[in-house]
Amino acid sequence: METRREKGLKTLGVLTESDGTGILKRLKEFPALAHGVVDFAYGEVLSRDVIDPKMRQLLTVTSLASQGMLTPQLKVHFKGALNVGAKPEDLIEVIYITMIYAGMPKALNAAAVLQEVFREKNINIEVDLDAAED
Amino acid sequence: METRREKGLKTLGVLTESDGTGILKRLKEFPALAHGVVDFAYGEVLSRDVIDPKMRQLLTVTSLASQGMLTPQLKVHFKGALNVGAKPEDLIEVIYITMIYAGMPKALNAAAVLQEVFREKNINIEVDLDAAED
Amino acid sequence: METRREKGLKTLGVLTESDGTGILKRLKEFPALAHGVVDFAYGEVLSRDVIDPKMRQLLTVTSLASQGMLTPQLKVHFKGALNVGAKPEDLIEVIYITMIYAGMPKALNAAAVLQEVFREKNINIEVDLDAAED
Amino acid sequence: METRREKGLKTLGVLTESDGTGILKRLKEFPALAHGVVDFAYGEVLSRDVIDPKMRQLLTVTSLASQGMLTPQLKVHFKGALNVGAKPEDLIEVIYITMIYAGMPKALNAAAVLQEVFREKNINIEVDLDAAED
Amino acid sequence: METRREKGLKTLGVLTESDGTGILKRLKEFPALAHGVVDFAYGEVLSRDVIDPKMRQLLTVTSLASQGMLTPQLKVHFKGALNVGAKPEDLIEVIYITMIYAGMPKALNAAAVLQEVFREKNINIEVDLDAAED
Amino acid sequence: METRREKGLKTLGVLTESDGTGILKRLKEFPALAHGVVDFAYGEVLSRDVIDPKMRQLLTVTSLASQGMLTPQLKVHFKGALNVGAKPEDLIEVIYITMIYAGMPKALNAAAVLQEVFREKNINIEVDLDAAED
Repeated sequence: METRREKGLKTLGVLTESDGTGILKRLKEFPALAHGVVDFAYGEVLSRDVIDPKMRQLLTVTSLASQGMLTPQLKVHFKGALNVGAKPEDLIEVIYITMIYAGMPKALNAAAVLQEVFREKNINIEVDLDAAED
Repeated sequence: METRREKGLKTLGVLTESDGTGILKRLKEFPALAHGVVDFAYGEVLSRDVIDPKMRQLLTVTSLASQGMLTPQLKVHFKGALNVGAKPEDLIEVIYITMIYAGMPKALNAAAVLQEVFREKNINIEVDLDAAED
Repeated sequence: METRREKGLKTLGVLTESDGTGILKRLKEFPALAHGVVDFAYGEVLSRDVIDPKMRQLLTVTSLASQGMLTPQLKVHFKGALNVGAKPEDLIEVIYITMIYAGMPKALNAAAVLQEVFREKNINIEVDLDAAED
Repeated sequence: METRREKGLKTLGVLTESDGTGILKRLKEFPALAHGVVDFAYGEVLSRDVIDPKMRQLLTVTSLASQGMLTPQLKVHFKGALNVGAKPEDLIEVIYITMIYAGMPKALNAAAVLQEVFREKNINIEVDLDAAED
Repeated sequence: METRREKGLKTLGVLTESDGTGILKRLKEFPALAHGVVDFAYGEVLSRDVIDPKMRQLLTVTSLASQGMLTPQLKVHFKGALNVGAKPEDLIEVIYITMIYAGMPKALNAAAVLQEVFREKNINIEVDLDAAED
Repeated sequence: METRREKGLKTLGVLTESDGTGILKRLKEFPALAHGVVDFAYGEVLSRDVIDPKMRQLLTVTSLASQGMLTPQLKVHFKGALNVGAKPEDLIEVIYITMIYAGMPKALNAAAVLQEVFREKNINIEVDLDAAED
């Protein structure tokens, strides 16, 4: 039977296209935080299967974007969302939800983070700017 | 062709099991806010069909719960989510995402709002408390 | 020459239509907070005359509404704004600024507080709802 | 050897002058949240002994007061702080830290919660109001 | 008659000393956000004339500074405020309102952004530091 | 008798290993903010002796970390905490309190700031990563 640690690393690894252990090294001075993130959050809560990983990532980026200053996490989780099957269009909708419910500045800042992710992933969004016009 | 106002009222009406016009009366001193909510938010942005209404509502309640103090809106949108097909289990997952990404107090407060909604809607969640234990 | 305390009580008194000492009694267990509010905030900072009291109050309610959960203070300062010459129309604009820059839920919550103030002050806003329509 | 659940209930019980199981019943629809609060937060993280329970509670109420809208949790934890040996004077200092670092409105709101706790606990603070004066 | 787009671009253009279209290009993947900012926010809400552009900008920077992490927007709108007639002294007062109502750290961060704007605009504030002393 | 300014500069100086006047020069365009920080915050409120400087700094960093975006202040005050006798272990506990009460992303961001401080101060934390494992 998998331990929480194993489940956590697997779940994290899928999101980050790695073996998931990077965060353990990065948080070596903070073992209870590493434990919280890997074993509790990813190993116990987020590895359950009530909602699928794609939906879970869309909820995650919405939470991060709405709080408005969590740039490093937002970048990781936008990428993670694409890595588990979210389409760029889904992530763009998250920006719009943020605009309505958390205000335009937070939406603009999240959009800038998403554009960076699109660039790193070579994702090109074809848009018809006139479609949005009056 | 539908105007933005008509589309907005229809989208809002589905969420609130009404004709959607309640907010216009409630906001009569604030016409540009009523306009923003009904015509822009619901009539232009949230009535698009890139994501389905259920997904949109799950993103919405995640945004509200993560900001942590938007109780009246959270109640409306938890109900709205149920009204467009979200299952109670989906909403419970939103509480868990909030716990991880916005902290336990915000999750506890959102859970209290959701419990009120469950009571008003006569929704009974059968749970096996021991399942959560060590 | 006026002490900070005297200046603070006078500035607060104008906002609250009182002699300003209510807060000293209300905060009797918290002398450094009472001191901070009355002597420092109102006696030293907010009693300066670079901007006029009406403008200062409009900035104050914008700050409070944008933080989103400061209902008791928002009520005091909406009233205070009216007491130093702001027009209801100015306060309605604050709601719209909040809508754009802090999101619709915070604007809706601030609008509800302002409506209470309008009721207590018997202020009736005549609006042409159709003006906002499509 | 104690399980996490047992440790968590014991730690929570000391704070709330109970057997700690109230939260399990109150959160019955949210087993992963109950698990997070009782088993992870109280059973694993907060029951460690690097800092003493009094200090931990003072940090906790500072976190809650600084986020500004977490009234129910703030009340529980102000009481919890007194139950593990914090003095009223320590909690009053938390209000002052909040005033400086999170602004006066959040400090005023936290002070109102603390006053309720003082009343419920029959704690009378003798203060010399003139001491704070100019 | 001007369309919302035309009005929005004109209002934005005055703030940014440009033709206002920069944001349309910058947000090309996010047409509904571009639409929200240009057509709804600037074309419908912020181009109304109940309050003058200078006052509107002062409210805007107060909202942004009080939320505490909206640095890119704060910079644009501090500049925009100067471009529509606000005096440096008005913006300095916004910092003080932020200090009182949102805490010293947010005020310090907004002050750092404003200092950058002063440098870019070659604005020199002559101050008498002793005036603030005890 | 010491003036507020003298007391403030002394208190600030201990935190920052300097004579404390740096902030006066850095804030020369904002005399009322410099006054608020030095004379009111450090000279009147934070130089009182109800709690000791180490405890006060631990409360301060908890407040800053929980608000989630106050990086420059967090860095100053993590250092200040070490300068008045806090142990690295105490600061690590602050990260854990932040994780529980304000969510994992804010804890991760505060941990990154603390790691920078540890590096600058040549502090090496020996940890047993397996201790945190399942």
